Amino acid sequence: MAKQITSRAEDYSQWYVELVKLADLAENSDVRGCMVIKPYGYAIWEKMQQGLDQMFKDTGHVNAYFPLFVPKSMFEAEEKNAEGFAKECAIVTHYRLKTDPAGNGKLMVDPEARLEEELVVRPTSEAIIWNTYKKWIQSHRDLPILVNQWANVVRWEMRTRLFLRTAEFLWQEGHTAHATAAEAEKETRTMLDVYADFAENFMAVPVIKGKKSEGEKFPGAIDTYCIEALMQDGKALQAGTSHFLGQNFAQAFDVKFTGKDGKLEYVWGTSWGASTRLIGGLIMAHSDDDGLILPPKLAPIHVVIVPIFKNDQELSAISEVADKLMKELKAAGLSVKFDNRDTHKPGFKFAEYELKGVPVRLAIGPRDLEQGTVELARRDTREKKSMKATDVATEVPSLLDDIQKNLYRKALKFREDMTTPVNSWDEFKKVLEEKGGFLLAHWDGTAETEAKIKEETKATIRCIPLDAPVEKGKCVLTGNPSNQRVLFAKAY
Amino acid sequence: MAKQITSRAEDYSQWYVELVKLADLAENSDVRGCMVIKPYGYAIWEKMQQGLDQMFKDTGHVNAYFPLFVPKSMFEAEEKNAEGFAKECAIVTHYRLKTDPAGNGKLMVDPEARLEEELVVRPTSEAIIWNTYKKWIQSHRDLPILVNQWANVVRWEMRTRLFLRTAEFLWQEGHTAHATAAEAEKETRTMLDVYADFAENFMAVPVIKGKKSEGEKFPGAIDTYCIEALMQDGKALQAGTSHFLGQNFAQAFDVKFTGKDGKLEYVWGTSWGASTRLIGGLIMAHSDDDGLILPPKLAPIHVVIVPIFKNDQELSAISEVADKLMKELKAAGLSVKFDNRDTHKPGFKFAEYELKGVPVRLAIGPRDLEQGTVELARRDTREKKSMKATDVATEVPSLLDDIQKNLYRKALKFREDMTTPVNSWDEFKKVLEEKGGFLLAHWDGTAETEAKIKEETKATIRCIPLDAPVEKGKCVLTGNPSNQRVLFAKAY
Repeated sequence: MAKQITSRAEDYSQWYVELVKLADLAENSDVRGCMVIKPYGYAIWEKMQQGLDQMFKDTGHVNAYFPLFVPKSMFEAEEKNAEGFAKECAIVTHYRLKTDPAGNGKLMVDPEARLEEELVVRPTSEAIIWNTYKKWIQSHRDLPILVNQWANVVRWEMRTRLFLRTAEFLWQEGHTAHATAAEAEKETRTMLDVYADFAENFMAVPVIKGKKSEGEKFPGAIDTYCIEALMQDGKALQAGTSHFLGQNFAQAFDVKFTGKDGKLEYVWGTSWGASTRLIGGLIMAHSDDDGLILPPKLAPIHVVIVPIFKNDQELSAISEVADKLMKELKAAGLSVKFDNRDTHKPGFKFAEYELKGVPVRLAIGPRDLEQGTVELARRDTREKKSMKATDVATEVPSLLDDIQKNLYRKALKFREDMTTPVNSWDEFKKVLEEKGGFLLAHWDGTAETEAKIKEETKATIRCIPLDAPVEKGKCVLTGNPSNQRVLFAKAY
Repeated sequence: MAKQITSRAEDYSQWYVELVKLADLAENSDVRGCMVIKPYGYAIWEKMQQGLDQMFKDTGHVNAYFPLFVPKSMFEAEEKNAEGFAKECAIVTHYRLKTDPAGNGKLMVDPEARLEEELVVRPTSEAIIWNTYKKWIQSHRDLPILVNQWANVVRWEMRTRLFLRTAEFLWQEGHTAHATAAEAEKETRTMLDVYADFAENFMAVPVIKGKKSEGEKFPGAIDTYCIEALMQDGKALQAGTSHFLGQNFAQAFDVKFTGKDGKLEYVWGTSWGASTRLIGGLIMAHSDDDGLILPPKLAPIHVVIVPIFKNDQELSAISEVADKLMKELKAAGLSVKFDNRDTHKPGFKFAEYELKGVPVRLAIGPRDLEQGTVELARRDTREKKSMKATDVATEVPSLLDDIQKNLYRKALKFREDMTTPVNSWDEFKKVLEEKGGFLLAHWDGTAETEAKIKEETKATIRCIPLDAPVEKGKCVLTGNPSNQRVLFAKAY
């Protein structure tokens, strides 16, 4: 049997860590803060990459690749950006090891191989990319540039948690350049919509689109837009950000273009990113005390077939049916696994695939053979039913659609139940402490109030929702006037 | 018009560098030795990745991801491997920048943020991966492990050339673990075959499979197998390597397993890799003085449609035909571009797509409209013909097949013409100097002779071909006995 996982009710944090490990998604490495993404976890990332990459291409973007290293002088060119990341950078200072003259058979950093200028391992690539765009852009005819990069980045985080916060992580970062502010702003919003679409339709996670407050925005951006999702413990997770950079990086790297009118102007920019953090969000949004629950669109295996047999003869007869089903399901574009191991009992296998979140399980025993049936179990609702083997190939694809939609509906209902408008400071604190989730509250718009609320409650402004109605009110903390409710929550 | 490229006859090296830049494949960055892979170059890499990744999966492998950094003590565990890479490693020593107290607005490395142990930016991942496998492997039931990683690696090369040799490059590295030597050896050879298959059937580049001499093998391997391709200037390019690691890394990282017989034994390993260097080989194998020639299986764009028009009315009529053709060609799984820019003349566009190596060009003018024809031109042979528009969708796919095969045939004929058996030291030097290419020569099997030949001629043993017949002979340099000819060449 699979090992028991700590329940969510008992210790949500512990449940998460155990689940990530037991489901074979990732583990901590012996390199401080860096994770190993194991094959099953990486397979989910590959599905995410495919989905996002197609969406980027459908919106006119192309991929490229820029250097891992950023020379210090280039890194510091955009001051706010540099300041924002300086405290958590891995820095390369030497380019050679040599044999330790102590004669201990060890290597040591060769002091003679010190770099003239230190290199920062990219925490994000605005600097190196805008330094490159300077060479690519002269005229309005060179614009727009719509480039995305799939890469690893490093941020020297002190407290790490698998997928959610690690020193090295994988991500994509889009970096676009435009002739006008309006076009760059439109791009920023388009990519926010792409992220929201991906979260809702692939991850089955509803999100709230909004703008970050000044205090929470990306260092170097004019505006940061984000999508915010709610996890089962009532904490928020930022699942993608899209930044309107204005002309900040163009000014820092002197990137100008000649307009149609012949005038030189600084280029307008955006950047947007989503990372392996999404895997953490996916897990925390849907899974239960028995293991992962994966939406079919991101599940590495859609259907597992488990034979129930006492001897080789039975297995052989079941295998014939299973082979036929596999062929049919694969022809329908599904990923299918037939687990015919004779070293493990069906009960063990059932628990293992529940742990791994395989959306649909088919069990076939001797009685099914006689009756031409299979037993189908869905992971999300745990419902089981017997069905004709000949119906499997037609019914499973639409069942997977149902599962995808059901997960979204369930997550949406949870979020709706866990979103509370609050109207006073006492109510704010009470709801945050007793119920958690998203709080919709009036805020006076100042950084001081934002900081004070964070200090007292650990709740932050997740975003200023884009679709919130204009509503006159009073700031929950200061009583000062406000025109709109904003979204507060404790967050990952 | 596109800029003129230096011809291959005039200066092959210069031709290569100019072609890479003019075709928009890559450029040097402002980070020493690191390149920027531009969108068109990256699109070729994506095609390569898709092809290889599918082959890896078809042979039972899964992808995973391991840390970018290797702590120095871990790096030095396998001594030969460490020794082989120590001289060209980027080393992280600090994890924070701070404001320079000089008050110049600059950042500096914070001396208080020195790492206790330095981190090596991976030049290859055997060390970090075998350190991880120690935790994954206890029993024979945990074997084999068949893992691949797509990643960036850094080797601090002093002389770099775009794609062929850069400080940072992209690659895949397979790392497998097995219960027996025989199984690991079989894996080594299977992956060599996969690389050869990819080179020949995707890249249209014929390769010679062989084993490296002791002097040329991977540091830490028992045996290194490779595929060697011949470039148009008569120099060789190693296009993929597959290493039988024996138990070297298992011993260095103490990775043992309990066999079926209950005995503890060290695990057997392999590793194998191919990199963005393949793009350099692809360019050098096929392209000509007018630009790239890309095999259809790796071409980002298969077909370009160029309208020939004098006014909007003509363009509009041509667009109707082009739209229909695009739809049909896309339905056949092809990538098609319709270049309807009115800012450039057809001649400019023709040159541009020749430069970019688009395999098939369709031109449509007013007379074609009248006659229901298009003019088709293939990039490899430069042949043009007029054909019925209604035949395009059925003929182009098989034409692309033809082009793919033709490129391979042409490259194979070139290699055959440029492979010369030589039987004396004078002949060796004469052929190498006057003709170049692959030399098949007897060698006495010693490292001394190998080194001396390299010193005198710059030719190295590319490989000991796997399919070479047993043939008694005398070493070209020393006259000592030899049982087999080996493959010599100057190499990239």
